[in-house]
Amino acid sequence: MYGAGDVRVETVPDAGLVEQSDALVRITRAAICGSDLWPYKSMPESDAGRRMGHEFIGVVEAVGSAVATLKPGDLVVSPFLWSDGSCVFCREGLQSDCLHGGRYGSADVDGGQGEAVRVPQADGTLVVLPVAADDDLMPSLLTLTDVMGTGHHAALTAKVGPGKTVAVVGDGAVGLCGVIASKRLGAERIILLGSNPERIALGRAFGATDVVQERGEEAVERVRELTEHGAHSVLECVGLEQAVQTALAIARPGGAIGRVGVPEHDTTATGLAFWKNASIAGGPAPVRAYIEELLPDVLEGRIEPGRVFDRTGSIEDVPDGYRAMNDREVLKFQIEP
Amino acid sequence: MYGAGDVRVETVPDAGLVEQSDALVRITRAAICGSDLWPYKSMPESDAGRRMGHEFIGVVEAVGSAVATLKPGDLVVSPFLWSDGSCVFCREGLQSDCLHGGRYGSADVDGGQGEAVRVPQADGTLVVLPVAADDDLMPSLLTLTDVMGTGHHAALTAKVGPGKTVAVVGDGAVGLCGVIASKRLGAERIILLGSNPERIALGRAFGATDVVQERGEEAVERVRELTEHGAHSVLECVGLEQAVQTALAIARPGGAIGRVGVPEHDTTATGLAFWKNASIAGGPAPVRAYIEELLPDVLEGRIEPGRVFDRTGSIEDVPDGYRAMNDREVLKFQIEP
Repeated sequence: MYGAGDVRVETVPDAGLVEQSDALVRITRAAICGSDLWPYKSMPESDAGRRMGHEFIGVVEAVGSAVATLKPGDLVVSPFLWSDGSCVFCREGLQSDCLHGGRYGSADVDGGQGEAVRVPQADGTLVVLPVAADDDLMPSLLTLTDVMGTGHHAALTAKVGPGKTVAVVGDGAVGLCGVIASKRLGAERIILLGSNPERIALGRAFGATDVVQERGEEAVERVRELTEHGAHSVLECVGLEQAVQTALAIARPGGAIGRVGVPEHDTTATGLAFWKNASIAGGPAPVRAYIEELLPDVLEGRIEPGRVFDRTGSIEDVPDGYRAMNDREVLKFQIEP
Repeated sequence: MYGAGDVRVETVPDAGLVEQSDALVRITRAAICGSDLWPYKSMPESDAGRRMGHEFIGVVEAVGSAVATLKPGDLVVSPFLWSDGSCVFCREGLQSDCLHGGRYGSADVDGGQGEAVRVPQADGTLVVLPVAADDDLMPSLLTLTDVMGTGHHAALTAKVGPGKTVAVVGDGAVGLCGVIASKRLGAERIILLGSNPERIALGRAFGATDVVQERGEEAVERVRELTEHGAHSVLECVGLEQAVQTALAIARPGGAIGRVGVPEHDTTATGLAFWKNASIAGGPAPVRAYIEELLPDVLEGRIEPGRVFDRTGSIEDVPDGYRAMNDREVLKFQIEP
């Protein structure tokens, strides 16, 4: 890709092994990702161009001397990021934050939309498939590189589970895979927000129980009508600020938003949180529930939160109590009427 | 309170029963909350004034005919919000979103910084204490009305647990209670971000293992030095946008931020989420982990995500594939090289 709208098919130097942990993979199946459309819409013109593609299945042609789990001839599927499989984050299942991982199509790594790819950290990255390269399951296996895993991530982070009402914002491939993931995780009701008739039909085939074709405020109203208090779980599969606002508006109090659409604005709090897969929760505390939980600890002296009171006064002293707390002269003021 | 900085002690009409579900409580102990300082700093002048206070313990003087669990003479503690205890949200433990709940100090409900209060929905709201009103535990019991429960909420929503490294942003009463809550929930390491020497000393007594007195970028650097990758759990107990940014910056990839500081800006995405206690999570999916989880379902045909591909072409067709996906003519394009 040389700029917005400018994709060219060109002959590039052959992919090959560089590090001992590399594998060389001949691609048998690949795809264009919705996220490839972001540079397609907005990439500044570039003389150097950019290798594209990060969703692929292929056959191992060669492996470096340090590769232990793969051999030439293996049919393999790759995640959209490569990862070493051994760092602290990989061991926790957060390979997207691998300390030694990276992206395809960067300076010295090929893109997946081509004939062959150098795969760094091959042992940690590739998964061998127990089928032939022409198996009928190939399209579904190909989605495991990105969109199906991403829809699953949206569902997990939105806390989808049995009995839950789920809303999926976006009828692209990720949103539709989010419908599959929600059904697979036991959701009771799955509301798909989208407007394209064919995509909606596929969404229904995947398990959507309701469809909302309205947009913006009308979509919010429609989901409220369908759910009374909103959805327990909302999968935000678009990334535009409008979609995030819609997701927040249709979430039930105490609900969860799983966000996988690449954020339009990286610098907002939620944009920053996205890139490190951090969750933001909290709000006004349901203290009534916690009184019963914490009361025994207070009564038995296991916790002493009362030590935060460093001044006590009568009701007459309250105005000065405000002043003293506001001046940070007092941490917390206690009143004995 | 008649405006910023203008708190007056005045005689008001006696509190009394209005609804059959009310209790009348004579206050024996109350407090000023950090959130009371927000109007103290910024409230426009008002002729009517505003009743203040929502943290109190007291003795029941009278109950309405519908009250079943309380009787005159009971010593009771109230959460900072009243709630019916029976709606769908109360039954789920989210009494802060009770469908029939509300706040003290509103139009026809008294404030807690006074001699007596009308408590609506008394059965659902008040908890009877098994001690006398002059018990030494009174200060700690009083914190259960708000700050201790709020610190606990921050810790729960930040997913504090055994082995976790926790960072607490803010050395006010809520932050200090967040330290108590984190220790109580088994945190291995608790880093308190604060600058006031007396509060820090109390934080250490409550269980903080490290203190960071720097602010802003320097605080972020210091936490990074202490933790290598950041904190698993971050309790944001301030509410200023700067504190939210700090909380995000010191969170570990995959970490959790529990936010209980009343947001400075209500209209940001995180501000909106705060008021409905919604969580926002997600980010780049750790697809490598999910391939192993989802592969059996694909191989056995239980899910068919490959149906998202509605066009297939060779490498030569890729440029037109981009165009077609960008024009929404194609949902997802598959490449067979």
